[in-house]
Amino acid sequence: MIAKENLHAFFHPETVAVIGASASPGKIGHTVMTNMLGAGFRGKLFPVNPKGGVIEGLVAVRNIADLPRGLDLAVIAVPRDHVLGSIEALGAIGTKSVIVITAGFKEVGKEGYHFEQEIKALCEAHSMAMLGPNCLGMMNPAHGVNASFAAGQPRAGSIAFFSQSGALCVAILDWALGENIGFSKFISLGNKAVLDEAHMLGYLADDRDTKVILGYIENVEHGEEFLRQARAVCRTKPVIMIKAGTTTAGAKAASSHTGAIAGSDQAYAAAFLQSGVIRVADVASLFNLAQAFSTQPLPRGPNLAVVTNSGGPGILTADIADRSRLTVAELSQRTIERLQAFLPSYAAFYNPVDIVGDADARRYRKTLDVVADDPLVHSLLVLLTPTASVEIEKTAEAVIHTARKCGKPVFACFMGKTRVARARAMLMEAGIPCYAFPEAAVRSIESMYEYYLWKHRPEPVYAEYSSDRELALEVIRRHEERREPEIVEFQAQEVLRAYGLPTPKTVLARSSDEAVAAAEEMGYPVALKIASPHISHKSDVGGVVLGLGDAGEVMRSFREIAARAQRMRPDAYIAGCLVQEMAPPGVKEVIIGFKRDEQFGPMLMFGLGGIFVEIMKDISFRLAPLSRQDAFEIVREIRSYMLLRGLRGDPPVNTAALEEIILIMAQLASDFPQVWEAEFNPVLINHERALVADVRLTLLLKESRG
Amino acid sequence: MIAKENLHAFFHPETVAVIGASASPGKIGHTVMTNMLGAGFRGKLFPVNPKGGVIEGLVAVRNIADLPRGLDLAVIAVPRDHVLGSIEALGAIGTKSVIVITAGFKEVGKEGYHFEQEIKALCEAHSMAMLGPNCLGMMNPAHGVNASFAAGQPRAGSIAFFSQSGALCVAILDWALGENIGFSKFISLGNKAVLDEAHMLGYLADDRDTKVILGYIENVEHGEEFLRQARAVCRTKPVIMIKAGTTTAGAKAASSHTGAIAGSDQAYAAAFLQSGVIRVADVASLFNLAQAFSTQPLPRGPNLAVVTNSGGPGILTADIADRSRLTVAELSQRTIERLQAFLPSYAAFYNPVDIVGDADARRYRKTLDVVADDPLVHSLLVLLTPTASVEIEKTAEAVIHTARKCGKPVFACFMGKTRVARARAMLMEAGIPCYAFPEAAVRSIESMYEYYLWKHRPEPVYAEYSSDRELALEVIRRHEERREPEIVEFQAQEVLRAYGLPTPKTVLARSSDEAVAAAEEMGYPVALKIASPHISHKSDVGGVVLGLGDAGEVMRSFREIAARAQRMRPDAYIAGCLVQEMAPPGVKEVIIGFKRDEQFGPMLMFGLGGIFVEIMKDISFRLAPLSRQDAFEIVREIRSYMLLRGLRGDPPVNTAALEEIILIMAQLASDFPQVWEAEFNPVLINHERALVADVRLTLLLKESRG
Repeated sequence: MIAKENLHAFFHPETVAVIGASASPGKIGHTVMTNMLGAGFRGKLFPVNPKGGVIEGLVAVRNIADLPRGLDLAVIAVPRDHVLGSIEALGAIGTKSVIVITAGFKEVGKEGYHFEQEIKALCEAHSMAMLGPNCLGMMNPAHGVNASFAAGQPRAGSIAFFSQSGALCVAILDWALGENIGFSKFISLGNKAVLDEAHMLGYLADDRDTKVILGYIENVEHGEEFLRQARAVCRTKPVIMIKAGTTTAGAKAASSHTGAIAGSDQAYAAAFLQSGVIRVADVASLFNLAQAFSTQPLPRGPNLAVVTNSGGPGILTADIADRSRLTVAELSQRTIERLQAFLPSYAAFYNPVDIVGDADARRYRKTLDVVADDPLVHSLLVLLTPTASVEIEKTAEAVIHTARKCGKPVFACFMGKTRVARARAMLMEAGIPCYAFPEAAVRSIESMYEYYLWKHRPEPVYAEYSSDRELALEVIRRHEERREPEIVEFQAQEVLRAYGLPTPKTVLARSSDEAVAAAEEMGYPVALKIASPHISHKSDVGGVVLGLGDAGEVMRSFREIAARAQRMRPDAYIAGCLVQEMAPPGVKEVIIGFKRDEQFGPMLMFGLGGIFVEIMKDISFRLAPLSRQDAFEIVREIRSYMLLRGLRGDPPVNTAALEEIILIMAQLASDFPQVWEAEFNPVLINHERALVADVRLTLLLKESRG
Repeated sequence: MIAKENLHAFFHPETVAVIGASASPGKIGHTVMTNMLGAGFRGKLFPVNPKGGVIEGLVAVRNIADLPRGLDLAVIAVPRDHVLGSIEALGAIGTKSVIVITAGFKEVGKEGYHFEQEIKALCEAHSMAMLGPNCLGMMNPAHGVNASFAAGQPRAGSIAFFSQSGALCVAILDWALGENIGFSKFISLGNKAVLDEAHMLGYLADDRDTKVILGYIENVEHGEEFLRQARAVCRTKPVIMIKAGTTTAGAKAASSHTGAIAGSDQAYAAAFLQSGVIRVADVASLFNLAQAFSTQPLPRGPNLAVVTNSGGPGILTADIADRSRLTVAELSQRTIERLQAFLPSYAAFYNPVDIVGDADARRYRKTLDVVADDPLVHSLLVLLTPTASVEIEKTAEAVIHTARKCGKPVFACFMGKTRVARARAMLMEAGIPCYAFPEAAVRSIESMYEYYLWKHRPEPVYAEYSSDRELALEVIRRHEERREPEIVEFQAQEVLRAYGLPTPKTVLARSSDEAVAAAEEMGYPVALKIASPHISHKSDVGGVVLGLGDAGEVMRSFREIAARAQRMRPDAYIAGCLVQEMAPPGVKEVIIGFKRDEQFGPMLMFGLGGIFVEIMKDISFRLAPLSRQDAFEIVREIRSYMLLRGLRGDPPVNTAALEEIILIMAQLASDFPQVWEAEFNPVLINHERALVADVRLTLLLKESRG
């Protein structure tokens, strides 16, 4: 655990030591010194070098032990073999936080990995917040901190950026300098031995200087903590992230359907979706959104109004908006009338409002004021084509004027490059995102609207179902003792019943006579299914026969199934056959499953049975714990959801019953970490009730000592 | 028909008159003069103004009649009411082409529309090539022509651009001036009264100055001509287009499934796909691709090699490439060995090749030469992060050096903005597209690869099926005479048989006795279906019963069906019931249909039966005429195609039989323009044969005079 106080000292240090400070330009220990001084650091800066001397006008401290006790931040830029000693010495004087810039740790192999483990343990022992190793450093421009060896000082701003790739930090810094973009915090995470993205989210959530958080990550190690922090921060400010290094889908052929489908990128997708993190695929989008979120209020609805001085760009914009979650909605009648009062008759009074090529700034201004005033309008995009008569800079002023007073998000797209350059700079300076072409503008507004919806979702509600955990545990223990990883139907049903899950009447018959007796008892028609702990895909060995109508059929089928299974799987122990009640007619089949993701824990999946999951890959995912809202969504997210709503007069299925089974499965996953994956397949559902017709639980057996 | 010679005179005029030339700055007739002179026009320029005088140093001609006979190009910038007269006079002196800049025609309503029709007729009568009206004009910088009133002179280049939106011309011109992008031709199409996008494609196909064609269109009026020209030109050079004004899907609830689904944007999508036009959604992509195609050779395969000096951007690039049609393929063993000979041991020798942050230009150069030399590599992307030790401009030189000699496409992504600005300018100058972030680079290479594949497709082969057209025509005529738009099953089957299409044995039974007799003849089980010209969705009236096993069942069902249909549709004439052989077990159901698109003619559609088409919208489209290749593709393009390939040991269906039915339907659509739409639903298909089990043809009945 990193104390909040130490994290604060890390970001807002009053005392900073540079371990390995150097007077030789080109050395990292020199660049860190000049960067700190160049950033205008107002606290105490201590160069540390065993040789002493004067570095950038400051007398070097020879020993770490001579630094003040309770030092806020130490930046370590010494050769790798001296890092551990430095940290030990820093720990001894009660240093609150360190940045290890030095490379040569985990990233270079086994030996480096062990070094890293050692410094990590040491930092933890002293509860020091440690950034890196193998990183570029950290900046807090408003506080005069540039504890990095990067080239260039960004200005202070309201965007926080953290990145697992130092190179991306370098590139983005250079880009931000060119675009005059400011940062509240700029963090190169490096190897993430101690501080990682979850700590950043946790800290930045409460950081008043930060309006928007950007992140680049390649992996998340502590998925559940990440999820917890991300969920919390997204309630108050937007988090926009790139996840790089998506694993190739289908690389591993897993043993069950769930396993085969639930590649880890699905887990990241679910994590981002459930926590409210806005995921982008490329760096350009990252910054487009950062600018939008950091300057404009959120739109309070989907209705986008477009004001343009030319038709073509207006149409293009409407097209793009139409394919987004935004709506190019009709304006109110009153607005149209107000526009008609002063716009020329050949203008288009609807939306996009085309005020035509001869529009001057005055016409833009009046139009913008009227349109922004319409209560049906939630956001505004102003298009300008540099025609001969347009007053480009004056129109920019008009846009700024409207934006300042209307309280709604206003975006501009001044098309072209040379003639609109000055106006674009004016707009950006005034905090109005301005783009060269409409696409990026629409995408930004769409993302902001989606975030608005996220932010105003009701608080998630988590259900708790009563269960007979002892009973379930007994079944699991029995399998663990016998070292049987698969809990198959009959015994798995016991687990389900312990959780109150609806299962079909099922009797294990050891002989054909027992089968007939059971069938007579439950009433025809019945199904027969092979019962063996070693056969998980029953159909593959011809082990399932449905719709048996009388005693003769049951008798015959029992013998056939048993013989076939024994022939095809001579190694398998055959316990007999399960006699099972048949599903009522008109039911739909769905699959509900979970699999444990290494980073994020149990991941639930939902889809329609058969080809929908297997061929169409029409599956939705959610990470546990699932809220009621998650269960509601996972059912409705699949493309084939319409089939559950009822076609051609069929009644819709009882989705509430499905959602409950999903929530109970999630609870089961949380209750028993030793259940590695589970599949309810099929779950039968009609307008009244749901039935888990077949089930398979797979245990993770610990290595036996023998 | 526009004579090729006149189009040539239009683009390469030696004599140009400006009708409405003016000496007053700000007037269009003045701007056109200064633009022509500013472009360095070397031919003869005639200002025409009834008042005479000297305009920009040239003596004005007072009357059009005084201009030289056989004038190449006249630019008309007079008030609307004088346009017609001007064109008449120009026609009289044998003018080859005109540009009507004047607005106030079709775009302002009915009166303007009539004016436009008049000038159009006049131009056609004199076979004058006419651009506009209501346009910005045209430029051919290499020929010293700027016959427009746009602000700014673009440089000569190899990109042709035409646009239906004058505003977009203005914006793009301004943008191109800022980016120093050159054009071979720059055309504002305006109202397209005579010259349209199809003429442009036809001309530019053979234009040696044009390497890449860009277009912005809002609609195509002559779809089949557009398709013909686009197909031809895409064989020789890339065409990249934006189609704006996509109609909202599902706006009209059409009467049949095909109609409901085949919105006209699908027709445009099919037109672009089948002709090889590269469709983009936004202007930024238009220009990214234009730069890529105009400067780099096409990649001859999917394998992209990435060379980078940093891990993160390399991973991001691999992610993006992995989701594209490109492959981040393994390098050859020899290449890896060659790299190992000089790269530091901590470099990554695979792909992306990470030559690490301390790489200088020499290391880049050696790496690029070795990687480009690998025969497995088809294209190369060079990433550079501006780290402290990188030599940015020298690396740009290394990239240029490799690109010049390797004959493969080379792209650069120098990340950042300020520090890489000079190197980026050097690369662009040398014809190497350079981007700030990797996404656009990968997208460009992907598009070039897709175009490479298109260009090297075999020539399309069109099949011709023998048919008894007279027989089919007879059935159609019969319905036309009776003014019955729907040709239903029994009679529609006759049409199918005329085309040799396989249909199930079907007998129309007028009574239950006839039904039993027919069933006995064809053998049980049979299906019964209501037969009425007024009932097109038989199931909706309970008019279909399947699997009847004996005479009693047939007898009973006949009566029930007939009674039910009569009760539910008392207005319908009931001819009886069709007795039909049942489909063999294990067949799949597909839907094949067509509908006429107003612009593009018959559009074929294909999908799997039932929910796949109706709920999942999993449908593929092609415009007629279909090549064998098109038929092959339309079947394989749907997501659910895997179901036809056979699951769990089922044999794959006979796709060749399906393709044949699709081609025959396309032929039927071409043979009978009065068949407005058709639906074969379902077509039953198994591993052996296909059967058109149900069919509906809809005629377009001409308004009757009565």
